[in-house]
Amino acid sequence: MLKKLGIQLPEVSPAIGNYVDAQQVGKFIFLSGRGPRNECGDYIKGKLGVELTVKEGYYAARITAINQIAVLRKELGSLDKIKRIVKVNAYVNSAPFFYDQPGVVNGFSDLLVALFGKSGRHARTAVGVNALPLNMALEVEMIVEVK
Amino acid sequence: MLKKLGIQLPEVSPAIGNYVDAQQVGKFIFLSGRGPRNECGDYIKGKLGVELTVKEGYYAARITAINQIAVLRKELGSLDKIKRIVKVNAYVNSAPFFYDQPGVVNGFSDLLVALFGKSGRHARTAVGVNALPLNMALEVEMIVEVK
Amino acid sequence: MLKKLGIQLPEVSPAIGNYVDAQQVGKFIFLSGRGPRNECGDYIKGKLGVELTVKEGYYAARITAINQIAVLRKELGSLDKIKRIVKVNAYVNSAPFFYDQPGVVNGFSDLLVALFGKSGRHARTAVGVNALPLNMALEVEMIVEVK
Repeated sequence: MLKKLGIQLPEVSPAIGNYVDAQQVGKFIFLSGRGPRNECGDYIKGKLGVELTVKEGYYAARITAINQIAVLRKELGSLDKIKRIVKVNAYVNSAPFFYDQPGVVNGFSDLLVALFGKSGRHARTAVGVNALPLNMALEVEMIVEVK
Repeated sequence: MLKKLGIQLPEVSPAIGNYVDAQQVGKFIFLSGRGPRNECGDYIKGKLGVELTVKEGYYAARITAINQIAVLRKELGSLDKIKRIVKVNAYVNSAPFFYDQPGVVNGFSDLLVALFGKSGRHARTAVGVNALPLNMALEVEMIVEVK
Repeated sequence: MLKKLGIQLPEVSPAIGNYVDAQQVGKFIFLSGRGPRNECGDYIKGKLGVELTVKEGYYAARITAINQIAVLRKELGSLDKIKRIVKVNAYVNSAPFFYDQPGVVNGFSDLLVALFGKSGRHARTAVGVNALPLNMALEVEMIVEVK
């Protein structure tokens, strides 16, 4: 399905701090927050509503999803071990008058659903924040159920 | 107990984006973030400390709790299946100098405790954020343990 | 190990609102968000990038970790019952142009790793927010696996 969508998973970039990419407890795997790091290793940066449009934010969210999926493959060995995406929490770097966090985070959610189908449908919280590490456009963490 | 408190649960409003209202894994049910949507279908909007007082925020938080309880009833069939409210995470739309997020979010917590008693007592995180979807006054997610 | 690090755990301060310090479900214990309350009972306050430097924020994060460890000891009776720190979520009181949340939150993570070794390594999300309860410098919650 990755191929069908034309997606090539990147290398997992090192954590920005003293933490690990993911922790698994029983059937739950908790992923650390990650941002939109592109193939060149650069982050998409800036605040939605000022420096980035919803369309650009949507794209950044899609890139972030690809990065998180790369983490899952690295942790689990294969994406076939994913039973279900359970929960997504997204923090969007926002101007105080920017209210379309959902339109941005759909870039993350749409990719999960395209990739995993019904198993990709998840509970979600999307909020705005005034500042993120490295000024990245958004940061997303998730909880996944494994088989 | 809902009747005793004079509460009538509303219809569950559709998710604002490509996600589902809740995901259950084992005994845990994870609810998506929701806001203060009143009986007319309008959200209570604005930033605490500028457009809304703590009292108005408290009321908005209470409305949000009612909306989340409506989700739980829809998902579980009956509120009797709730064993315990485990965790509440609340994001309050705040001016940068507004520091009483707890006073606002108590509107959510107080209702849970009034409704479920000891089983309604939960761990909680309440923070301020500079922007929320649709400019809603707050957004709250929770984790619930089911029987 | 606490002694070796010269750490004396403080009393657990009461929750700021209608919630409990922690909730345990099965092997998971969910801790409420807490801030940097020092031995005198005062919170370290202010925004990173304006009123506090990264170094001061790092110290505040370390104090916050000590407070959360005090909660764990109170809840579990002994820190020996901790199997693993699973997940840390940190909200840093930030100016909109402050991007080094990781440098601050490392003060929390570094202490966990110093104290618990490999079992202290955790998944993490660190974001900036524009306002926190009591204007505290940061607020941190965590999920811990118990034996």
